[in-house]
Amino acid sequence: MAKNPEEEHPVKAFGWAARDSSGVLSPFHFSRRENGDDDVTVKIFYCGVCHSDLHVAKNEWGFTNYPIVPGHEIVGIVTKVGKQVQKFRVGDKVGVGVLVGSCKSCEGCQQDLENYCPQLVFTYNSIDCDGTKTYGGYSDVIVVHQRYVLRFPDNLPSDAGAPLLCAGITVYSPMKYYGMTEPGKHLGVAGLGGLGHVAVKFGKAFGLKVTVISGSQSKEVEAINRLGADSFLVTSDPAKMKAAIGTMDFIIDTISAVHPLLPLLSLLRLNGKLVTVGLPNKPLELPIFPLVLGRKLIGGSDAGGMKETQEMLDFCAKNNITADIELIKMDEINKAMERLAKSDVRYRFVIDVGNSLSHP
Amino acid sequence: MAKNPEEEHPVKAFGWAARDSSGVLSPFHFSRRENGDDDVTVKIFYCGVCHSDLHVAKNEWGFTNYPIVPGHEIVGIVTKVGKQVQKFRVGDKVGVGVLVGSCKSCEGCQQDLENYCPQLVFTYNSIDCDGTKTYGGYSDVIVVHQRYVLRFPDNLPSDAGAPLLCAGITVYSPMKYYGMTEPGKHLGVAGLGGLGHVAVKFGKAFGLKVTVISGSQSKEVEAINRLGADSFLVTSDPAKMKAAIGTMDFIIDTISAVHPLLPLLSLLRLNGKLVTVGLPNKPLELPIFPLVLGRKLIGGSDAGGMKETQEMLDFCAKNNITADIELIKMDEINKAMERLAKSDVRYRFVIDVGNSLSHP
Repeated sequence: MAKNPEEEHPVKAFGWAARDSSGVLSPFHFSRRENGDDDVTVKIFYCGVCHSDLHVAKNEWGFTNYPIVPGHEIVGIVTKVGKQVQKFRVGDKVGVGVLVGSCKSCEGCQQDLENYCPQLVFTYNSIDCDGTKTYGGYSDVIVVHQRYVLRFPDNLPSDAGAPLLCAGITVYSPMKYYGMTEPGKHLGVAGLGGLGHVAVKFGKAFGLKVTVISGSQSKEVEAINRLGADSFLVTSDPAKMKAAIGTMDFIIDTISAVHPLLPLLSLLRLNGKLVTVGLPNKPLELPIFPLVLGRKLIGGSDAGGMKETQEMLDFCAKNNITADIELIKMDEINKAMERLAKSDVRYRFVIDVGNSLSHP
Repeated sequence: MAKNPEEEHPVKAFGWAARDSSGVLSPFHFSRRENGDDDVTVKIFYCGVCHSDLHVAKNEWGFTNYPIVPGHEIVGIVTKVGKQVQKFRVGDKVGVGVLVGSCKSCEGCQQDLENYCPQLVFTYNSIDCDGTKTYGGYSDVIVVHQRYVLRFPDNLPSDAGAPLLCAGITVYSPMKYYGMTEPGKHLGVAGLGGLGHVAVKFGKAFGLKVTVISGSQSKEVEAINRLGADSFLVTSDPAKMKAAIGTMDFIIDTISAVHPLLPLLSLLRLNGKLVTVGLPNKPLELPIFPLVLGRKLIGGSDAGGMKETQEMLDFCAKNNITADIELIKMDEINKAMERLAKSDVRYRFVIDVGNSLSHP
């Protein structure tokens, strides 16, 4: 029988956990493993609130193992390193993203694509190499193998930079892999949430023409004035949608709800690419004619490997890219989750863990 | 009002046409335009029977304009050339494939991708540049602008080579475009009909490991012994399908009926590509998780441009690639169509037009 989470390991930890599919989070005492030879202990300062956190907290994907401590957009300071650790020193600013372990020997791991390792260990709600459960960043401390720890550039703000560790890499990686970086090409960003708003910024940094595709006309002004998009297309306007047919080279589809693909595929020109990074919980309807008759493709992508995540953080530091965030206190998380469920956030909540997680 | 097809143009022509959605074909007198300055007149010797011919004859895609003369895998001899024609001379062996016209100025036409031109003129059931209807190769003669006529290599058999003009280019083009040509990689060919059996041959010519994926166990011996596939996977065997999960780099999906994509996507490894060239008449169900979690893609492709079709014919001549055919007489076409509807053909019917189309 599994030990009590508080007794399981020697390092005391404290965070907020969901206990059931209500998804309501509350204070939770647990523990972390002793810092091993290859481990880095991180005191957590900030943690972004990803939509996955909500899905898992409410068991919407069906594989939640309660209790869970969400959080995989973690920024903090190194407080301890194992004797095999050379990349990090105590006091370094570091990040931890969606994964904290992998097999290190499969095809994915060997190609710096640990994110596709079949034995991937997620930062929370996963089983770690030692057989114990992983807990995420809505907590004060985390112990992670050095391979899965990232240098967090000093000039990148810790709070607004935290969401790059999931939202950022999730859109950056497919933009690189599918060749959506050629200056002058036209990128559509479908959905303007945590992922979409960062995709707009990457698009502009790569020199693309960027059009936000959204169901909410109300987002137009912000998309253009605040985020720097070149244009805005509201899906509910048939005349504008028709006029935009065949004008885009790529679309990055960040919509996580079930949605029709045909209108998006129609916006693509010959050889256009639609890349989906959302995870709707039901299959979508795939119209074959536009794919075949326009030699279009639909691809997927899931986060990124450690090497590319580091590259992305360095790119953001160089290009002054951060997320637009609403900073919240730890005890505001349940209200924030409610707002997130309604997409009422501009554009990412980040928990000020360091200043607001009070030990009872 | 449109003129009678027999009176419309000066060049008398004779073929077999479908008159209604029964799809039954019968003798038909019509006419072809006078050979213009850029035109080539071709006496037709052979014409392949493509599955599209059946779809269109029975109006299964809903846009058939009766009467139609099907046929877009045409091989014949040049009998006349216009004064601007330098590529061809009387007596040359030539081919005509799925298209006989395009705008010549759009993005597609400028990139030798006339097959994606929005003003594409199909070889039959289409409206030609002069506003008259196009009729296909189940007939004795055709007049075609030189741009859409192909040199048919002398050492390529005219009968067994004819299906390359549609079936061949339809699988060759995506294999090149999506990078499915790297020796040693593992290609799955889903569906072993007219397209699939040629895809197996291209796969072997490119140096790939080729597995045929089929619903019919009965095709195993032929797939391996006759066509040269390395292995055979029957979709109805759950144990074998499970054992093959994650083993393929690419799948070319030639199945034109509605079918589930999940089993095929599961066979792909990380970064795997599924390319569909069939045109099911309803949308398919697209499972998003395998796409995202394995960075897989689904792409489409439709025939090929003139330049690439010529390259493909030359490649086939060099590598001794032809279709496996059943040669039929013109008056056997209705029986052949019935068999084709049941996939009862090894692997392409070709009409011996030159020897069996008797003028009444």
